[in-house]
Amino acid sequence: MVDPLERSFSETDEEIMRGTYRALREHGYADLTIEQIADEYGKSTAAIHYHYDTKDDLLAAFLDYVIDQFVSTIHEVETTDPAERLDLLLDKLLVDPEDHQDFLIALLEMRSQAPYKEAFGERFRQNDEYVRYLLETVIDHGAKKGVFADVDSEHVARAIMTIVDGARTRAVIHDETEALATARRAVEEYVDAVLFE
Amino acid sequence: MVDPLERSFSETDEEIMRGTYRALREHGYADLTIEQIADEYGKSTAAIHYHYDTKDDLLAAFLDYVIDQFVSTIHEVETTDPAERLDLLLDKLLVDPEDHQDFLIALLEMRSQAPYKEAFGERFRQNDEYVRYLLETVIDHGAKKGVFADVDSEHVARAIMTIVDGARTRAVIHDETEALATARRAVEEYVDAVLFE
Repeated sequence: MVDPLERSFSETDEEIMRGTYRALREHGYADLTIEQIADEYGKSTAAIHYHYDTKDDLLAAFLDYVIDQFVSTIHEVETTDPAERLDLLLDKLLVDPEDHQDFLIALLEMRSQAPYKEAFGERFRQNDEYVRYLLETVIDHGAKKGVFADVDSEHVARAIMTIVDGARTRAVIHDETEALATARRAVEEYVDAVLFE
Repeated sequence: MVDPLERSFSETDEEIMRGTYRALREHGYADLTIEQIADEYGKSTAAIHYHYDTKDDLLAAFLDYVIDQFVSTIHEVETTDPAERLDLLLDKLLVDPEDHQDFLIALLEMRSQAPYKEAFGERFRQNDEYVRYLLETVIDHGAKKGVFADVDSEHVARAIMTIVDGARTRAVIHDETEALATARRAVEEYVDAVLFE
């Protein structure tokens, strides 16, 4: 698996990505235009097309950018104590994203288009695989140290991501803060039950 | 709360709804046209417009229809034994929907448009409220009979629906059968932990 951090974005790319982020939050994905992204970027559509042929190319690169940002915040979790590390990872997944409902909306729109746009599906799967890898690793490490029960870590990681994806989806239809808080509490109950049985 | 079964669909409505279902599975939501629905229905677009002014009106009615269908299958769960009833409800939510990935895709597309189309959001929320009500009722009943622990049934119902929505979302990006099976196993582990502590 390629470490997402091996990619690098130039300063121009970064600026285009930040413009794309603002445009997605403002307008959503379905009707988003390069013009709207250019407005947020503060330059012409030609300046964007110089770097990206199509809107979908730009948005696929944007998903790479989002994954990189997420991976950077994950790297802030520096503790190696298994229980503490798992707890902080779950916070990164379910607590820190609060107050970005408009972004969660745009991401769910892109996710729902993944079956039609392979470049999107590939990136969502890559990110999911990476996070599950981190979860499995900390669970296996904890089991080895005798802190956690000896569980099917692949299943537990998938179960945790099911709760995380449920929260992200419910945040779009229901009250976002409540959806994330419910999921954080549920994942705690779940993890306590299976890892500290 | 209005019991969804109080609504009724005429035979013509039913036929249009079945055509809509086939068209959604075939073409997805984003680019769906009334022409495609008319093709599946086997009549003219005028015949559809006679009943529904716009595509969104038709799709809002379609969501009502889907909710009614779902409620009908829920009514098949006739046992009143709390543990058995909860188990069968979870099967209805996570086992029976298998092999309908193309429909789950269309539903996720509509769900992602809920923030822009209040008629969609309202129906997704109504269905969610109804299912949570069923779950809360069986959990409270079990607690009263001393079969389940005395828990915060509203939270547990929300947690269960977070897992269900996570499975529905993951089915679109990942392997559907695996996503639903993981969620069924996770919800069992969760329910066992909180209700039989």
